[in-house]
Amino acid sequence: MRLTAYTDFSLRVLIRLALRPAELATIAEIAALYGISEHHLTKVVHKLGVAGYVETVRGRGGGLRLAKSPAQIGVGDVVRRMEPDLRIVACLRDAESCRIAPACVLSTALGRALTAFMAELDRYTLADLVAKPRRLGRLLGVEPADPVGADE
Amino acid sequence: MRLTAYTDFSLRVLIRLALRPAELATIAEIAALYGISEHHLTKVVHKLGVAGYVETVRGRGGGLRLAKSPAQIGVGDVVRRMEPDLRIVACLRDAESCRIAPACVLSTALGRALTAFMAELDRYTLADLVAKPRRLGRLLGVEPADPVGADE
Repeated sequence: MRLTAYTDFSLRVLIRLALRPAELATIAEIAALYGISEHHLTKVVHKLGVAGYVETVRGRGGGLRLAKSPAQIGVGDVVRRMEPDLRIVACLRDAESCRIAPACVLSTALGRALTAFMAELDRYTLADLVAKPRRLGRLLGVEPADPVGADE
Repeated sequence: MRLTAYTDFSLRVLIRLALRPAELATIAEIAALYGISEHHLTKVVHKLGVAGYVETVRGRGGGLRLAKSPAQIGVGDVVRRMEPDLRIVACLRDAESCRIAPACVLSTALGRALTAFMAELDRYTLADLVAKPRRLGRLLGVEPADPVGADE
């Protein structure tokens, strides 16, 4: 059971942007920071834009930045928007796929487990993910914008 | 985010066996019941045997049956044994895969979410999954062994 790399990359992009929320970053820069494909990241950023999490400024000197404050971006919501399929077994996607679906306690159990999983993620916002801006910034080689409330 | 078909099939095999725990069933029969590949199911049953959930009787008239009572088989434990990888993002498999891993609150959040997911599954045993034996049996075309405590 894994989240797609797509969702993983989405969250990492948001973490990087949240370190300097007022400034533009480029896809090339973020791809290099994490050592991931610029091609993949372009698709991720497009979908983050459609979902309203980032905004893009075109042209020379352009780039992307957060479209909302980190405290307004729920981690559970990002996963719901970015993960292509959270129906973790076939019967939750298509009840016809399993003949015991109409009486299956297992699908109920798995549904509850997924609800518990998402409820845990709903306790976090992007602001929580960057609660240690200096340590994160040092690991990424990016100076955090605001040392107020910094971690050291 | 999906469980593998492997884990899904494992649980479905156990549900079928729990309907008539004392009797032998065959892989061919179970594959036909669920409309899934006999080849896949052979691998699933082998691993269920290694994990101690089923026992196999060889030869003519042979087959497989539960090696424990349904109440002794925890759903969370089956998922832990059968799912190839529950480390839902790359950094939980390999901290080197992401440079912010040492300071990442996201990996903590995802780890807690997975714990909540598994805790919910740990509330169920195989006995709970076959708590409606008559309905399940009718859907599978299998007469439940014991009508005591039946659902209708």
